Amino acid sequence: MNKTATSETPGAAASANEASGVTAPALRVTVWNENRHEKQNPKVSEIYPDGIHAAIAGFLTEAGMLAGTATLDEPEHGLTDEVLDTTDVLIWWGHLAHGEVRDDIVAKVQRRVLDGMGLIVLHSGHYSKIFQALMGTSCALKWREADEKERLWVVAPAHPIAAGIGEFIELEREEMYGEHFDIPAPDELVFASWFEGGEVFRSGCAYARGGGKVFYFRPGHETYPTYWHKDIQRVIVNAANWARPVKRERPYRGNAQPLEKLAAGRQVTKGEGQQ
Amino acid sequence: MNKTATSETPGAAASANEASGVTAPALRVTVWNENRHEKQNPKVSEIYPDGIHAAIAGFLTEAGMLAGTATLDEPEHGLTDEVLDTTDVLIWWGHLAHGEVRDDIVAKVQRRVLDGMGLIVLHSGHYSKIFQALMGTSCALKWREADEKERLWVVAPAHPIAAGIGEFIELEREEMYGEHFDIPAPDELVFASWFEGGEVFRSGCAYARGGGKVFYFRPGHETYPTYWHKDIQRVIVNAANWARPVKRERPYRGNAQPLEKLAAGRQVTKGEGQQ
Amino acid sequence: MNKTATSETPGAAASANEASGVTAPALRVTVWNENRHEKQNPKVSEIYPDGIHAAIAGFLTEAGMLAGTATLDEPEHGLTDEVLDTTDVLIWWGHLAHGEVRDDIVAKVQRRVLDGMGLIVLHSGHYSKIFQALMGTSCALKWREADEKERLWVVAPAHPIAAGIGEFIELEREEMYGEHFDIPAPDELVFASWFEGGEVFRSGCAYARGGGKVFYFRPGHETYPTYWHKDIQRVIVNAANWARPVKRERPYRGNAQPLEKLAAGRQVTKGEGQQ
Amino acid sequence: MNKTATSETPGAAASANEASGVTAPALRVTVWNENRHEKQNPKVSEIYPDGIHAAIAGFLTEAGMLAGTATLDEPEHGLTDEVLDTTDVLIWWGHLAHGEVRDDIVAKVQRRVLDGMGLIVLHSGHYSKIFQALMGTSCALKWREADEKERLWVVAPAHPIAAGIGEFIELEREEMYGEHFDIPAPDELVFASWFEGGEVFRSGCAYARGGGKVFYFRPGHETYPTYWHKDIQRVIVNAANWARPVKRERPYRGNAQPLEKLAAGRQVTKGEGQQ
Repeated sequence: MNKTATSETPGAAASANEASGVTAPALRVTVWNENRHEKQNPKVSEIYPDGIHAAIAGFLTEAGMLAGTATLDEPEHGLTDEVLDTTDVLIWWGHLAHGEVRDDIVAKVQRRVLDGMGLIVLHSGHYSKIFQALMGTSCALKWREADEKERLWVVAPAHPIAAGIGEFIELEREEMYGEHFDIPAPDELVFASWFEGGEVFRSGCAYARGGGKVFYFRPGHETYPTYWHKDIQRVIVNAANWARPVKRERPYRGNAQPLEKLAAGRQVTKGEGQQ
Repeated sequence: MNKTATSETPGAAASANEASGVTAPALRVTVWNENRHEKQNPKVSEIYPDGIHAAIAGFLTEAGMLAGTATLDEPEHGLTDEVLDTTDVLIWWGHLAHGEVRDDIVAKVQRRVLDGMGLIVLHSGHYSKIFQALMGTSCALKWREADEKERLWVVAPAHPIAAGIGEFIELEREEMYGEHFDIPAPDELVFASWFEGGEVFRSGCAYARGGGKVFYFRPGHETYPTYWHKDIQRVIVNAANWARPVKRERPYRGNAQPLEKLAAGRQVTKGEGQQ
Repeated sequence: MNKTATSETPGAAASANEASGVTAPALRVTVWNENRHEKQNPKVSEIYPDGIHAAIAGFLTEAGMLAGTATLDEPEHGLTDEVLDTTDVLIWWGHLAHGEVRDDIVAKVQRRVLDGMGLIVLHSGHYSKIFQALMGTSCALKWREADEKERLWVVAPAHPIAAGIGEFIELEREEMYGEHFDIPAPDELVFASWFEGGEVFRSGCAYARGGGKVFYFRPGHETYPTYWHKDIQRVIVNAANWARPVKRERPYRGNAQPLEKLAAGRQVTKGEGQQ
Repeated sequence: MNKTATSETPGAAASANEASGVTAPALRVTVWNENRHEKQNPKVSEIYPDGIHAAIAGFLTEAGMLAGTATLDEPEHGLTDEVLDTTDVLIWWGHLAHGEVRDDIVAKVQRRVLDGMGLIVLHSGHYSKIFQALMGTSCALKWREADEKERLWVVAPAHPIAAGIGEFIELEREEMYGEHFDIPAPDELVFASWFEGGEVFRSGCAYARGGGKVFYFRPGHETYPTYWHKDIQRVIVNAANWARPVKRERPYRGNAQPLEKLAAGRQVTKGEGQQ
């Protein structure tokens, strides 16, 4: 885990959540990457010499965020309590080694999301344990590697994740993902993709889960320079800002006393702890 | 597992899903119950002498459905493949013993739902493994046993689950469940409850998950005769009809060939099996 | 207006809304058509010799529904109170003459929908007054007539409107409609279209509005035989069944007395009539 | 229209929409008020001596926004093109005189919203022409003036509009609004209200419409000091920040040329202008 300070632009990525008129502190983002393709496939390491995580952390830093990284082969996959305690938004890229991610760490990350941490799941992360756990569905889809053109159309023009993006983003070569994508219907569908081979795909999907926000963003096959594309970077920066935790006290859940006087004859049974 | 035929009303519960104009076969519903309170608490067995499951199966049968039952202490909790193969909609009531439900059976039921089986989760089933797995959230809430009045207001008047129901259903005595209820925002919110003690609750929540439909319905604490209430019965019958599986071929997911001729230079990489 | 009885299949299109186990009466559908292209363009009248409305009413009748028709040039556009009183679901096709539809009749149809009548808006009906009034947005879109291939992908496999439909519907030649389609995000997105020319479109959009249901279905340009396509017919039959009015009393709105005893000191001000 | 600069806190209300790391300019909000109760009812003018609009503009200014006001009796109701050109978010309070608002100005405001301007509709504004036009439904509801307690529960803890708010907001005395509230199901339901008299209400409803965002917030009857309540102020400030226009080019709609080369034999018909 390596947090890069952005001393040139302190507090630059201010938050609209802060109603008080005081600029919010810079967003703290941790970019998690499996980091296996980069070590195995020269084609990938040529495009991302320091790994996909470093490429993403780089443009987040340029956007004024405090971006760190974590990878599968670090202890606890780099996702220690200390790291998560200082993470507002977690970005997730995985593919080959979903099965190697420890279940206890998946459960911990899920709890963090429900408690408010933002989560952005990229591309093949659709099949990660954490995304499946949060969606409750298989998250399976159609796919094909054929150097195809993808065009991501904005279908939610009022959504902050689409800020600064034109009518669509065109990627000359990408892996195809096709419907039916087995996810819950997104709370907000931001992008829908057209593929040269004849498929469509819900490629930008926003969810609230507990106190946290989740965004799935389709592009980013490891053999293409997708994360160097300015519009793709812009969407990820927007999504990180959108997923900033909302500052509220955690709701109490469990046995609760009445807030109002009950009618005569109502009998309050003493409950214990959480249900 | 005990399937009760309804020979007097063959095919009575016909389905609007059948566009062909041919009346659909009767809906096959399995009512699953933990069936522990009934054995331990005379107050409960007095209200439900044959168990909550039998009470529910009874009014479903009267509505023309083929209703069977299954309980925790049967082999495989009564949820064998044979039973599930003949189940269109599964109803779930559990409370004391969520932890005793086998994980492999939970996983099997989840797959069945994603493949089209309807699921209706009642009351304290909010904390069941199957509901948590399908929601991806904690499903925790506030609660209180105080003999309180609950009033379930219809907030989706166009929804078939509200058919035949007035502006609200009033229950003189029920357990209180209060917000924040940690569920994904329902695809359709059908009922919202008012409680005497000052809380509100999203008490009728409809979801699609994969090829199946899920409905959570709040009322039904074991010490009250809630499942003998005509409006509560009507909602559960409506929900079962609504959750009837849609007849379609299961979507293919995995590696897929292009449907369109790709531009020159596109290279199709041969993929293997499911991603 | 001409109601065609379907005496061969009485009550065939039964409804899942009827929880009582009694088969519901046949659905009464009125197919409204502008009916201008058919009179002006031989290419259209060759495909639809009796008009688009007759073609649609024909396959609805075959599906066991009581299907009638109404057209722009009839008195009150064929939408008298008498006709609407016996209409469960209204289907709308218009294009050239949206502006000729009387505002008072639009307002009347809108009220009927809010009171429970189903509405299915087809193709160029996206720009009709009634659809715009119910959506609250411009309902504008991109379009192109270029004999293009359209492929409508099912993105909501659990939805009854997709019953009996494969992974997609392929139309060899259709008009293109492209995003951004200026509609509210659908309550349920059932189909998303791929077009040969590079666009996508939300082509099957389900909404609840008041007590009624609205479905927008994209295909059906007048110069193509789209409404003779079996899958397109199946979707429209499914949609009509789905849009069947839910039988409930109309909710009361206006000044209301408290249902609970208020605390001492609360002063109830007498209100008058509807707010 | 009177724009109050907030020179002490330049650019304070920065926006998360701005991914570039550059703090966004202060939000420009126009608070529109019918301003009739204040002139007719001493009870109201005692609570809001300068009008409800001035009270709201006051706390928005304190939050670092550039807040101006506009009222019904000004020329063009104070909503000239010049005013709207410099309005990011419009807040709307009306009650007695909905019918006096000019239809052309309603249509203009609706277009502005679809083009990106945020709109926050307060309390009795539920029955305003602009809210009805954007919703497409009657927006009718139950109501009662009885000095009742209202408790607004947060049901969407991840939503930025709930930032800084506890589990609920309690208002000791308010007018009651009850279900069924005839609105489209909100894209996001943020608050649900409990009322002493036995009703519930969807009291914080978020929508996207075209390029703009709309938030309906229930509280604010003119005879209570609701807009002086810190939590109510916080919600309105949050909502204004949330409704900030997303900076994008307006999507093109109308006849469009193909982005891809069509198959041989496809014939592109020349279209004209907007459909």
